[in-house]
Amino acid sequence: MKNKERPIIILLKPDTTRRDIDEILSRIAGTGLKPLYMPGIERTVLGAIGDERVLAGLRLENYACVERITPVLTPYKLVSKEAHPAESVVTIGDRRIGGGDFLVIAGPCAVESEEQMCRTAEAVKAGGAGALRGGAFKPRTSPYSFQGLGLRGLEMLRDASKQCGLPAVTEVLEAADVEAVAACADVFQVGSRNMQNYRLLTVLGRQHKPVILKRGMSATIEDMLLAAEYIVSEGNPRVILCERGIRTFETATRNTLDLNAVPFLKSRSHLPVIVDPSHGTGLRELVAPMAKAAVACGADGLMIEVHHDPTTAMSDGPQSLDPGQFAGLMRDLDPFITAAGKRTAAAGIIE
Amino acid sequence: MKNKERPIIILLKPDTTRRDIDEILSRIAGTGLKPLYMPGIERTVLGAIGDERVLAGLRLENYACVERITPVLTPYKLVSKEAHPAESVVTIGDRRIGGGDFLVIAGPCAVESEEQMCRTAEAVKAGGAGALRGGAFKPRTSPYSFQGLGLRGLEMLRDASKQCGLPAVTEVLEAADVEAVAACADVFQVGSRNMQNYRLLTVLGRQHKPVILKRGMSATIEDMLLAAEYIVSEGNPRVILCERGIRTFETATRNTLDLNAVPFLKSRSHLPVIVDPSHGTGLRELVAPMAKAAVACGADGLMIEVHHDPTTAMSDGPQSLDPGQFAGLMRDLDPFITAAGKRTAAAGIIE
Amino acid sequence: MKNKERPIIILLKPDTTRRDIDEILSRIAGTGLKPLYMPGIERTVLGAIGDERVLAGLRLENYACVERITPVLTPYKLVSKEAHPAESVVTIGDRRIGGGDFLVIAGPCAVESEEQMCRTAEAVKAGGAGALRGGAFKPRTSPYSFQGLGLRGLEMLRDASKQCGLPAVTEVLEAADVEAVAACADVFQVGSRNMQNYRLLTVLGRQHKPVILKRGMSATIEDMLLAAEYIVSEGNPRVILCERGIRTFETATRNTLDLNAVPFLKSRSHLPVIVDPSHGTGLRELVAPMAKAAVACGADGLMIEVHHDPTTAMSDGPQSLDPGQFAGLMRDLDPFITAAGKRTAAAGIIE
Amino acid sequence: MKNKERPIIILLKPDTTRRDIDEILSRIAGTGLKPLYMPGIERTVLGAIGDERVLAGLRLENYACVERITPVLTPYKLVSKEAHPAESVVTIGDRRIGGGDFLVIAGPCAVESEEQMCRTAEAVKAGGAGALRGGAFKPRTSPYSFQGLGLRGLEMLRDASKQCGLPAVTEVLEAADVEAVAACADVFQVGSRNMQNYRLLTVLGRQHKPVILKRGMSATIEDMLLAAEYIVSEGNPRVILCERGIRTFETATRNTLDLNAVPFLKSRSHLPVIVDPSHGTGLRELVAPMAKAAVACGADGLMIEVHHDPTTAMSDGPQSLDPGQFAGLMRDLDPFITAAGKRTAAAGIIE
Repeated sequence: MKNKERPIIILLKPDTTRRDIDEILSRIAGTGLKPLYMPGIERTVLGAIGDERVLAGLRLENYACVERITPVLTPYKLVSKEAHPAESVVTIGDRRIGGGDFLVIAGPCAVESEEQMCRTAEAVKAGGAGALRGGAFKPRTSPYSFQGLGLRGLEMLRDASKQCGLPAVTEVLEAADVEAVAACADVFQVGSRNMQNYRLLTVLGRQHKPVILKRGMSATIEDMLLAAEYIVSEGNPRVILCERGIRTFETATRNTLDLNAVPFLKSRSHLPVIVDPSHGTGLRELVAPMAKAAVACGADGLMIEVHHDPTTAMSDGPQSLDPGQFAGLMRDLDPFITAAGKRTAAAGIIE
Repeated sequence: MKNKERPIIILLKPDTTRRDIDEILSRIAGTGLKPLYMPGIERTVLGAIGDERVLAGLRLENYACVERITPVLTPYKLVSKEAHPAESVVTIGDRRIGGGDFLVIAGPCAVESEEQMCRTAEAVKAGGAGALRGGAFKPRTSPYSFQGLGLRGLEMLRDASKQCGLPAVTEVLEAADVEAVAACADVFQVGSRNMQNYRLLTVLGRQHKPVILKRGMSATIEDMLLAAEYIVSEGNPRVILCERGIRTFETATRNTLDLNAVPFLKSRSHLPVIVDPSHGTGLRELVAPMAKAAVACGADGLMIEVHHDPTTAMSDGPQSLDPGQFAGLMRDLDPFITAAGKRTAAAGIIE
Repeated sequence: MKNKERPIIILLKPDTTRRDIDEILSRIAGTGLKPLYMPGIERTVLGAIGDERVLAGLRLENYACVERITPVLTPYKLVSKEAHPAESVVTIGDRRIGGGDFLVIAGPCAVESEEQMCRTAEAVKAGGAGALRGGAFKPRTSPYSFQGLGLRGLEMLRDASKQCGLPAVTEVLEAADVEAVAACADVFQVGSRNMQNYRLLTVLGRQHKPVILKRGMSATIEDMLLAAEYIVSEGNPRVILCERGIRTFETATRNTLDLNAVPFLKSRSHLPVIVDPSHGTGLRELVAPMAKAAVACGADGLMIEVHHDPTTAMSDGPQSLDPGQFAGLMRDLDPFITAAGKRTAAAGIIE
Repeated sequence: MKNKERPIIILLKPDTTRRDIDEILSRIAGTGLKPLYMPGIERTVLGAIGDERVLAGLRLENYACVERITPVLTPYKLVSKEAHPAESVVTIGDRRIGGGDFLVIAGPCAVESEEQMCRTAEAVKAGGAGALRGGAFKPRTSPYSFQGLGLRGLEMLRDASKQCGLPAVTEVLEAADVEAVAACADVFQVGSRNMQNYRLLTVLGRQHKPVILKRGMSATIEDMLLAAEYIVSEGNPRVILCERGIRTFETATRNTLDLNAVPFLKSRSHLPVIVDPSHGTGLRELVAPMAKAAVACGADGLMIEVHHDPTTAMSDGPQSLDPGQFAGLMRDLDPFITAAGKRTAAAGIIE
């Protein structure tokens, strides 16, 4: 990536001496950047135009006379629309997501058994899903909760995926698991708690399979784009951003689904954006309305928890749809997908 | 309203003595409530069934041995679906909102001049709005910002409303202004900063005009329903709830529009729910996608800022649509409204 | 107040034409402000130095080519340390707060009866409090909760205050009540829900008695300073800022007491800052440790809920101290007040 | 650990049939738990007393008729005060923390060079610190920021630690690094972004060195105690909890330091609690006041960023103290430590 020029604004504290100002200006000039001097009566503002990494090397923020340094442009580059104005299309198995293609990923929160996976896989395929999800490694808040079946779960997911012909999506928890997950799944999912696990992101940046990056519970949109930048800057451009709710003061719902993030991300980045209304609400009866809302505001896909029998689900039962509810939702989504100017991703459309 | 029985759970601290337990149980019984005794090895739990206001009178939370008291049912009653299972329909002028009727309220943030109001009123009417908004009293964070035209602004709003034939919606800031506002407007709007101004709510509860209650920036959904309960319990059932974004850590958008609140409110309350995507995003280009999302998740209406010339707007210019953008949005909304099973509120349909 | 110059930064979108740039620069120059032109390869940044209110009049944010406008200095003036470098001292009755004098305000959440006020007033005086609090008008989330005794409560507060010789502090809910409150109390308290009730702030700005301004539940520190600016800019400089906890995702405590705000406010503003650990925690056993922490980080005073018999308190019983606990806390605070370089405000020290 | 009985409350939806109720009661009874039946007019509440993990196995939350299940006691056990009423003391090198012993950990954010580590180590030792911190692996929001020196950094930390005689504290990013970190450091630090990296926590639970567990940016106090429970339940009781600020809407400071958490954690858990005012504020001038506040509200120690020359720091310069500022803070802390009833941890006091 060619280093771009970008202006940076340096606000000085009141009473900064002329000597301090001159020292900073000459340090800026010494790096080859173009210094700017903007005196005021109350305060002086300095500027610098050029590669901000060169400026960062000066560590001007450490000067006592510097109150604040404001980078003027966004800190992410490769994932930005400025870098790549057209929407990216990512392929999952033989389906496409982004650029007008809409894809639904569905399946249970956790892989529990062969039977559960097969029955749920058939149900989500019948309903019209384009990919199958299922977690083998489950990060759980309490050490006393079910933690997933691990490698055995990965194999069950792979088998169910092959049998029903849907690509498999599963969460990878750390760099050491990437190989094992890659052997069984078509898409890596990075969970909320790992969105800023930069080791994991870096390793996934060297893989060739797509990565679904879920927003951290307290991650800003910019944090999320920077996390994606970790993956893309290592060489893997197949990143799908996933809004799944943030943590706020509201306790009526499990999380606050931040749908503002969808059009905002679409306006700033070329990457596909999907929404997980299951975690984003935590309440079964809110999944369908929020899935429709996600479509309406421009999402490229959905990730929905479905269980062939939610009353027996070992995790997230209260937010899982049963096969009938899922099929009903898929039918109801159709007019919204059409109104949003998108088409449902079909298999085999990639030449 | 007949007092309903509801169970209340009282968790005692470890090591609570038998004497304390007996005292609490006998105080509960003394009020006529039915006491429950649920001993455990680590902890004892007590319960009470009956009118929770009677229980509240005992102030058991003040006992040192009481760790927590959990009311089992919701604290709001009149606005709850349990009290009134069918959706309420509120009439604004001769239009209806709720029960399948969808209404768009549009207009400028602030009334600025006669010309501005007339031109904007014509534009929103042409675009298909069902009511005209415009603020005469503007609560502003800084004392140095434009604070609205006051009474003169109310009159300009009234005149524009009459001329274009759309009912007028405007914010009322305090109890002392209710009469003046009622003389010029068809609908009272309670702003975010006033959602918990209980004096104002109580006075509005004695009026006969509808009240749009905007969610406070840090108000939970339950807080909002309790604020509505203030109005309804005084005798005015014409309350419309408005989601307009909450304050979170995210700074990319002005607020985080909590669309989860829409289906949640619809499932708990019979009151109509509308959404304000202008304040909920703060960014013009996000207004249209989030308006569509609001429709998709079940909102009964929208409140949208429109200005005949946003480049000259005295407040909220960056989030205001111009007439062309508004007309385009209204056309684009149609298939979403239909898909959501609603119809656009037309004038004169009330016999 | 003389208008101060301050630099303002205007970030343009990529591809802004030279014609648009020239138009903006000439509009800035046309107002008499000094325009700044800072071209970059990717983006152009413009600046303006002068009175920001003049710039605000141009409404440049409404131009399609303008991405963001960043005011460089703080928007508050009169309350800022730049305007008034020395710490302000506010007098409450014949005590002082600020400038090294530390004051504790204590009393019940709500005035409930003559006996309660007298007994609690005696207790807080004996414990060493410098002022007596008690609420006559209680804003309550539920319409079914106790709403205070109103005018009768104000009189009970006044009587208890006279009897024990401590100045009286009480909440005022709206502009219409200011006169009645002023007749009975020495200090106006603006509650959290009213921090942005600008009508009320404006009326209090024309009074001569001190105002305790409590931080809104979702108010930023800057919002709070701007609310204080409303009062001071009307002519009443006797404002005391009160940190009382903000609303966050944490539910273990009633609010998250933001003690960072204390040294931050002290470094930016000359106004005295106090802390309310009762509302800031909501838990009796956290009041004492957080009161000590408030002293340690530089607070000028405390506001503490005390009830002569918390088991009978009609509101906030679980966070109220009893007389013995209050006296113990006051003794325990002493070494912290000394270590913080402050002295407890004594009566009669004002000549 | 013996499974404890604890009551669990099951709220049923209105209109639940007698048949559903009986089915649930008989399933509860079938597990050996004691079922409770609490009928009301509007709603029925069921209860169960016994091991909640047995109840969790029934997955009653998946029943359509179940509205909410409320566990009555806390989900953490081993870290709770109920399990272990006396305060735990953890030893770091030959110093103690907890149970009245107060320890300050200080050093640079990142290890940058041998010279930097040695000079800073000498400075913090001279100032009175009891342990040396320094990060070799730096998780950074942007892929373009300095990521730490890695293994070479670990060795520099180890050398500086040996030379100055202070135990070394450093962050470990993932399970694969635990061995390398253990070879160079005396204490593992789990960073905010990893608080819920359960793989890492589990591996650290099998180590014998102490673990400092930093609170996640959006982690509740309960989440934090459950993360500690992961470590302790694997066999390592040497856990130190660290409050370092949470993410809220406030942007004036880098994070909102939640000091409420200190006395709350101390009242619920036996583990030592320390505070990081450097990350908790992000502003150098707030470090000293918030360090004092942390002492005052009961913290057992502090973690403070110190750099021998903050103007050259490669990360977190703006929140780092220089040696003179650190020495001044340590002197100023003394009376607060004494007032809080603690003593500064000295070396060699462990027999």
